[in-house]
Amino acid sequence: MSVTAAKGFTAAGIAAGIKESGNPDLALVVNEGPRRSAAGVFTANRVKAAPVLWSEQVVKGGAVSAVVLNSGGANACTGPRGFQDTHATAEKAAEVLGHSAGEVAVASTGLIGVYLPMDRLLPGIEKAAAGLSPHGGEEAAVAIKTTDTVHKTAVYEGEGWTVGGMAKGAGMLAPGLATMLVVLTTDADLDAPDLDAALRASARTTFDRIDSDGCMSTNDTVLLLASGASGVVPDGGGFAEAVRVVCDDLARQLIGDAEGASKDIRIEVVNAATEDDAVEVGRSLARNNLLKCAIHGEDPNWGRVLSAIGTTSAVFDPDRLNVAINDVWVCRDGSIGDDRELVDMRGREVCVTADLAAGQEAAVIWANDLTAEYVHENSAYSS
Amino acid sequence: MSVTAAKGFTAAGIAAGIKESGNPDLALVVNEGPRRSAAGVFTANRVKAAPVLWSEQVVKGGAVSAVVLNSGGANACTGPRGFQDTHATAEKAAEVLGHSAGEVAVASTGLIGVYLPMDRLLPGIEKAAAGLSPHGGEEAAVAIKTTDTVHKTAVYEGEGWTVGGMAKGAGMLAPGLATMLVVLTTDADLDAPDLDAALRASARTTFDRIDSDGCMSTNDTVLLLASGASGVVPDGGGFAEAVRVVCDDLARQLIGDAEGASKDIRIEVVNAATEDDAVEVGRSLARNNLLKCAIHGEDPNWGRVLSAIGTTSAVFDPDRLNVAINDVWVCRDGSIGDDRELVDMRGREVCVTADLAAGQEAAVIWANDLTAEYVHENSAYSS
Repeated sequence: MSVTAAKGFTAAGIAAGIKESGNPDLALVVNEGPRRSAAGVFTANRVKAAPVLWSEQVVKGGAVSAVVLNSGGANACTGPRGFQDTHATAEKAAEVLGHSAGEVAVASTGLIGVYLPMDRLLPGIEKAAAGLSPHGGEEAAVAIKTTDTVHKTAVYEGEGWTVGGMAKGAGMLAPGLATMLVVLTTDADLDAPDLDAALRASARTTFDRIDSDGCMSTNDTVLLLASGASGVVPDGGGFAEAVRVVCDDLARQLIGDAEGASKDIRIEVVNAATEDDAVEVGRSLARNNLLKCAIHGEDPNWGRVLSAIGTTSAVFDPDRLNVAINDVWVCRDGSIGDDRELVDMRGREVCVTADLAAGQEAAVIWANDLTAEYVHENSAYSS
Repeated sequence: MSVTAAKGFTAAGIAAGIKESGNPDLALVVNEGPRRSAAGVFTANRVKAAPVLWSEQVVKGGAVSAVVLNSGGANACTGPRGFQDTHATAEKAAEVLGHSAGEVAVASTGLIGVYLPMDRLLPGIEKAAAGLSPHGGEEAAVAIKTTDTVHKTAVYEGEGWTVGGMAKGAGMLAPGLATMLVVLTTDADLDAPDLDAALRASARTTFDRIDSDGCMSTNDTVLLLASGASGVVPDGGGFAEAVRVVCDDLARQLIGDAEGASKDIRIEVVNAATEDDAVEVGRSLARNNLLKCAIHGEDPNWGRVLSAIGTTSAVFDPDRLNVAINDVWVCRDGSIGDDRELVDMRGREVCVTADLAAGQEAAVIWANDLTAEYVHENSAYSS
C-alpha cells in the first residue's frame, strides 16, 4: 500500500550499495499523472542538507513528477560537492524517466558529513526505474529505513479517492516544521495550493508535535503528491482531515519506533491560556531528561514535571498547577495530591497531563523516555 | 576551609535524621561579625521552593546572620505547609542563636514534593548550633551532599582578606541564574551592594554557564556573606575577581561530579556576533542529547554540532561554520574538514570549539556527556 495505495503512482525500493550492509537503500516514487501537483514542508533547521535546499526549490514550482530517496547518507554539511551530487541525482532520474529535473525531488537520510557514493547511487536509479510498479510502495518504504526497526506506512480511503504515505525516522527526531522523510500520495484531483494548505495544517499538529529526543534534523522533508487519477475532487475539509489522519498515524509510528525507547509518552497540556503556551510547556516536558528517565523507571515523579513547567514563559500560577500521570492526579494546586502509589506505569504508553489552570487551550505532544539503549545506540561510532 | 576559611564565620554539619541513610544532612553557617552584609542569587525557575521564596526576602534586607541548609528533601512544591516549615526552621535557628529570624536564610535540597520531617530537623538545629566551630566548614560541606560523590569547597586568599565557599550539586544542573546550593563567605569589609555586584557578575559567567543535564532546579541558591572580620576593604576589581575565581572553581567541581557523567565537555563558541549568540549556541550544544552520546562514545561526530547550531537564532552562515574537537578542525566552511581519525577523545575532558565566523564575541559553557549511568541513576524510584 504505502505511497502506491492511491491510483496514478508507481514506486520501487532497491539495494544500490550505498549502505555497507547491502540492505535496501534507494527508493523511487513516480507520479504517473494525469496531474503532478505537489506540496512540501521541510526542516526548520538553519543548517539544511543539500537535498532539502534542492527540493524546496522544486516544490516551489508546484509540480513533482518523481522523488528519489536514499538512506545510508544524509548528504548534509557536504558543501558545493554535496549540492552537485543532489543535482546529478535529479538529472539522472529525469533522464531515465523522461521528465524535467526541475520536477524531481530528492531526499536523503543517514550520517551527516559524508559524501554519497555517486558511483553506486546513479546506477541504482536506473535499477529502481526498471523495477517501478503500482505495487512497489512497501519496497520503497523499506528502502528508506536507517535505524528504524520497522517500515512505516499509512492509508486513508476517501469517497472515491485515497491518501497513502510512508515515513522513516528513528533518531534526531524533533521536527521544527516537518519530520524526517515522509512521502504522501493521493489520487484526488487537487492543485498545489490545496495540497499545501492541507499539508501545512496537518503537519502543525502531527509531525510538529512529536519530540523523541529534542534533536532537530538537517534533512526533515514531507512531500504530498497528487496524481488526480481518481478524477474526484474531494471537499477541502474532508481531504485536509484525511491528510491529518495519515500524518498522525505516521507520526505516532515514528514515536513508537524511536531509537532505544521503551515508553511512548503522551503529554497533554490542558487549560492553557494559549495554544502556544500549551505547546511550549509540552515541549519542555518532552525534552526534560530527568522526567524522561523517571518515566523509563516507571516513577511518577511529578516534581520533575513542575520543575520543567517552571522554565517556560507560559501563563500559570505555581500554586494552581495540577499534574496527572495515567489519570492519577498526583499533584494538586502545586503541591502533593493523590497517592503516587496508585499510578500504574507498566504499559508502553504513559500519559502525563499538565493542567495549567490558566485558560481553555490545549495541545498534545508525543515523546519518548530516555534509556540506556538510546545512549548505547547513539554513542557507537558515527551511528 | 570552605566557608570557615574567612575570619568571622563558624559552621557545623550533623546528621539530623532527615536522610534515611543516617548520613549528615544538616549544615549551619553563622556570620559572627562584626558585619553581617550579604547578597544572593536564586533560581530563575518560576516554580520556586519554599526556602528560595523565604531566602529571597531575607537577602533583600542586605543582612544575613546565619544560613540553615538541609539535604534529604527540597521542600519544593509543598504548598503553604512547606513555607511554614521553612519559616519554623528560620525561627528555630534565630531562637537558638539569639538573632532575628529575618536574618536567617534557609536552603534545602533533595526530592521535590515531599514534606520535611520537622520533628527531626528542628532538634537538629539545636545539635548543629552546639557544634559550631571556626573549623566546621568541611563538615558543613559534607552535610549538604545529595548524590554528590565528593564535597566541594574552594578558597581564594586576597591581601589580608579571604573568600571561601562550599557547593553541592549533581543533577538537575542547568542553572538559570545560579546553581544548586552554594555558600560563599568573606572576611572583607564590604557592604551588601558591593557583595551583590561582585556575586552577580561572577555568577553570570560561572554558574550560569554550566549545563550538565538541561534541567533547571527549583532550589538553586548562591549566598555570599561578609563578616568584615579582616578589617580590610579590598579594591572592588580585586574582590570581584576573587569571587569569580571561587565561583568558577566550584562550578567546575560541580560539572566534574555530575550524576553518571564520564566526560566534562568544554564548549567554546568563538567569533560570534554577540555574547548572547555565543551563549545560545553553547547551550544548544550542551543540551543536545545526540552530541552528548557521541562524546560519551568518543566519536568526533561534528554533524551533530552543526545540526544543533542550526536550531539557534544566532547570526551565522551555514557555509562558514568551523568546528574543532580537541583542537582538530574536523569541519571547515560547513563541510568536511580535517581527518576525524586524528581526534583523541580518551581523556575525561573534551573540548568542542564552534567558530561561527560572524564576529568577535565568545563564551564558554561547561557540560557533561550522556551515559547509561545517568539514565540508571535518574530512573531509580524517586532518586
